[in-house]
Amino acid sequence: MAELCRKHPERFPTFAAALCMTDVEGSIAEARRAIKDLGARGVLIYTDVAGEPLDLPKFDPLFAAVAELDAVVWLHPARTAAVTDYKSEAKSRYELWWCLGWPYDTSVAMIRMVFCGLFDRYPKLKVITHHLGGMIPYYDGRVGPGLKVLGARTADEDYSKVLLSLKRPHMDYMHDFYGDTAMFGGGAHALRCGLEFFGVGHVVFATDAPLGPIPPTIKAIEQLELTPDARRQIFVGNAETLLNMKF
Amino acid sequence: MAELCRKHPERFPTFAAALCMTDVEGSIAEARRAIKDLGARGVLIYTDVAGEPLDLPKFDPLFAAVAELDAVVWLHPARTAAVTDYKSEAKSRYELWWCLGWPYDTSVAMIRMVFCGLFDRYPKLKVITHHLGGMIPYYDGRVGPGLKVLGARTADEDYSKVLLSLKRPHMDYMHDFYGDTAMFGGGAHALRCGLEFFGVGHVVFATDAPLGPIPPTIKAIEQLELTPDARRQIFVGNAETLLNMKF
Repeated sequence: MAELCRKHPERFPTFAAALCMTDVEGSIAEARRAIKDLGARGVLIYTDVAGEPLDLPKFDPLFAAVAELDAVVWLHPARTAAVTDYKSEAKSRYELWWCLGWPYDTSVAMIRMVFCGLFDRYPKLKVITHHLGGMIPYYDGRVGPGLKVLGARTADEDYSKVLLSLKRPHMDYMHDFYGDTAMFGGGAHALRCGLEFFGVGHVVFATDAPLGPIPPTIKAIEQLELTPDARRQIFVGNAETLLNMKF
Repeated sequence: MAELCRKHPERFPTFAAALCMTDVEGSIAEARRAIKDLGARGVLIYTDVAGEPLDLPKFDPLFAAVAELDAVVWLHPARTAAVTDYKSEAKSRYELWWCLGWPYDTSVAMIRMVFCGLFDRYPKLKVITHHLGGMIPYYDGRVGPGLKVLGARTADEDYSKVLLSLKRPHMDYMHDFYGDTAMFGGGAHALRCGLEFFGVGHVVFATDAPLGPIPPTIKAIEQLELTPDARRQIFVGNAETLLNMKF
């Protein structure tokens, strides 16, 4: 990746380091090497580490290192068809693990990162979520007021301290994530929903490229009622700020 | 329920019959009895029948009967904490099975009902989805263009005939569902997103009551840029048409 960026700097201005999170110490070393020596501006991690959630204490040192390096976390889902949608079936059918399971997993990871106090420990940690923040913008009612009564639906575990352990209302942190416009060519109504949730300063374009279809995304962004400044922010300005680069 | 409606007709104008879908024949008999003899206008079913999906051929006669009775299907999710979010954990933590799992399950059921040709067989079948259509409005890009290449991500099952077996483009059917405004007090941006997806004629209010918080939902609807006619449609007119009643 570093070599590609060196060869074609006008096309590939920087990259994110892929980490193998089953080795936390190795991941930290690789993050340092990629960012300090090779010019990466962030790290790519998945919402699930070999079946384990990101809020386990053992992953904390990685986030500490990324925050200290002032780098960006690219958070991407990783579910496969092996996660079934019905007990009677051995796998998720019709590619719904991809279609819906990915945004679901992103949302679960986001909430759990917040609930474990990660953003209180590392307030400057910047996390880009793909697919415009998973289900959080559309379901801010369920995540906000719905989880404000956390514990009311649970008898076998005490959740009464979770929200109290956070410095701010839990929903505040959800707005601090960044959302990528990679909505796979959906309508402007969906982009507008995510944009209103995150705000113009927290929506980024094509950080999930080249996997999403880019032309329909550009078209959908251009359909939004945005000032030229706001449009530039989404297309490039926010990425410049996040990555501390000029494009 | 019928007795309650008889006693307080101004407060409870009608009801939906609860069915026990593990007994399909019994469910059909109960639907007929409730609708023909007791004044129900529809049936409540869950997105998952004891671990099985609704697109199994054995459930088809129930949908045939409901369509023939010109009644409405209330489709509600049913997942519990037993569906874990991470392989390393025995259950879904922090009530995310409720917060996010419910809309996920609704979305999966909707897509599978469409893919099995249900709405080609019973074109007049009317289905109300709670929580404003699950993830479908926000992720219409993933469901629409994303599943248009159904099969491209799958090696062990042949999906090449699924979309071809449908009379219309698969996304058309998704807009035919009705969405309830039960968004748990979320912002107007989310309601607006669902409303733009389904259209004013397919959004209904309080069919999921009394479980969602009603006052914030009313407030959010009133924040939308709607004509008085459109607002009346959402609050009551669409329900009148759907249920064939005057309120």
